[in-house]
Amino acid sequence: MLSESEAQQIYRSAIHFDGLNIANWSRDIFEAWNKGGITGVSCTCGLWEGFRQSIANVVQWKKWFEEHSDLIVQAHTVVDIRQAKKDGKTAVLLSWQNTAGIEDQLDYLRIFRDLGVRKMQLTYNTQNYSGAGYTELNDSGLTGFGREVVDEMSKLGIVLDLSHVGPRTSEDAINYSSKPPCFSHVLPAGLKDHPRNKSDYLIKLIGSKGGFVGLSQFGPHMAKGNDSTIDDYVAALDYVIDLIGEDLVGVGSDSSEGHGRPSEFMAWCNKDKGYARPERGKLAEAMARAGWSETKMRKVLGENWLNYLEKIFDE
Amino acid sequence: MLSESEAQQIYRSAIHFDGLNIANWSRDIFEAWNKGGITGVSCTCGLWEGFRQSIANVVQWKKWFEEHSDLIVQAHTVVDIRQAKKDGKTAVLLSWQNTAGIEDQLDYLRIFRDLGVRKMQLTYNTQNYSGAGYTELNDSGLTGFGREVVDEMSKLGIVLDLSHVGPRTSEDAINYSSKPPCFSHVLPAGLKDHPRNKSDYLIKLIGSKGGFVGLSQFGPHMAKGNDSTIDDYVAALDYVIDLIGEDLVGVGSDSSEGHGRPSEFMAWCNKDKGYARPERGKLAEAMARAGWSETKMRKVLGENWLNYLEKIFDE
Repeated sequence: MLSESEAQQIYRSAIHFDGLNIANWSRDIFEAWNKGGITGVSCTCGLWEGFRQSIANVVQWKKWFEEHSDLIVQAHTVVDIRQAKKDGKTAVLLSWQNTAGIEDQLDYLRIFRDLGVRKMQLTYNTQNYSGAGYTELNDSGLTGFGREVVDEMSKLGIVLDLSHVGPRTSEDAINYSSKPPCFSHVLPAGLKDHPRNKSDYLIKLIGSKGGFVGLSQFGPHMAKGNDSTIDDYVAALDYVIDLIGEDLVGVGSDSSEGHGRPSEFMAWCNKDKGYARPERGKLAEAMARAGWSETKMRKVLGENWLNYLEKIFDE
Repeated sequence: MLSESEAQQIYRSAIHFDGLNIANWSRDIFEAWNKGGITGVSCTCGLWEGFRQSIANVVQWKKWFEEHSDLIVQAHTVVDIRQAKKDGKTAVLLSWQNTAGIEDQLDYLRIFRDLGVRKMQLTYNTQNYSGAGYTELNDSGLTGFGREVVDEMSKLGIVLDLSHVGPRTSEDAINYSSKPPCFSHVLPAGLKDHPRNKSDYLIKLIGSKGGFVGLSQFGPHMAKGNDSTIDDYVAALDYVIDLIGEDLVGVGSDSSEGHGRPSEFMAWCNKDKGYARPERGKLAEAMARAGWSETKMRKVLGENWLNYLEKIFDE
């Protein structure tokens, strides 16, 4: 078993990728990423917003990339993420938690892909043109328009995220998509029965297609709720690894640092989230305590995400 | 039985309301309405369009109302429609065949209601935020957002049209809405099995709530297809009257006069329509041939529609 100091040493040299971050970004947060050695972060820059506001969100990020170029850099590719590691910076992959930003225009997918939005959740909690979110009473499944969206995303090399998507729409999309989708920030229903958590069936199905599962650190959806510890999080990682192997699993923290809680932001997200936000360094130690090998640690901390992204981006 | 000349005489003095018209409007068509003694027409001014184009469509109509004020007048109320009859003009009720125009903004319902869009179909052929159109493989039913849309429409006095809406969403909406919805332009599946046609079950359900059924004159969805005659149309009216009585049934021609066929317009509607467009005068004669009384004729030609609209508009 790796010692605490060995774990910390591995941690410092490893690639760290966070598959979902929705913090209230500021220089303070970019500095914290830098200090924490975070290699890459998938940052939500679209949730309920339509076309114009989604463009404005991209503009804001382009300004931040200029203003904070000593700390962060935009990633269009996995090469960009690996380069950021070498440069001691954090790579930001712009991402959506909804396809609301394209409104009803398939062609807008290309516009946002070209602007660097390389990962999109099909729908947030509710129904949109493409399918149902997990809170709808009835799940429409993948709609006709949704099939076209999925096809176009595969063609354009945009990651299809199904985290908040309803179970029937998720299943349809996994079976339909020519490229494997991901659950970027979920927890297993096998450990805690909650409609936002994913069933063993869906986790195995997405794994069988080469899809990806990022584990969320959202306390209330873990077995012990907000009393969950970092060791419980590692146990959740192992639970999913038992289902689909250790190559398709990673971290998707769902961190909303800086928004405060409760906050207007959370009301906007239609959720009363109380995040458990374990330190990344502590995470490596907990992995060591769970008997993880260095290889498994490196994979789950970031390499798995990057390998998956390379497949989708056609790199 | 009424004679041909009696039928024509009744026709001239009766109120005529067409619950769905999507013609390629021009002065020629407004003149034809005037000559034909059409009292009121529900004109589609929104189908796939988003907010801005839907506003532009309203602007176009406001210009037409000015330019052709000798022939047409905008109706915000049933009083306006009855006044048009007295003035020898045709009243136009602006209507939508989709709620795409509000995009994701419930408050836009009030904007369009105030502009005179007093009748809206929940969705066109496919899935939108509110529910499924009849062509979707799976019918989502009325969504969470859809329930809010239906509530707001009831509150604002906007007619809820379910003609192109899927069967499950239609059933949900009929059961959920506090004001009775309508099928403004449909044909009965009992006479021709087609997914666009409405089952006896749904027709009886909408009738049981005081909802309305306007019968379309779209040949391909009638039992004899494009060989259908005006007498077959009267038989379809009688079929629905047998199900829900003679007070809740009227005309919703679905006329697309002036667009040509096949046309780019039809491709845009995603349909290859071949309309049967019987003359209204001929319709009165066919009603007489079917043994209809003067009262029944007047009701179905227009009085029923106006009574229903009064209920929804809270007049």
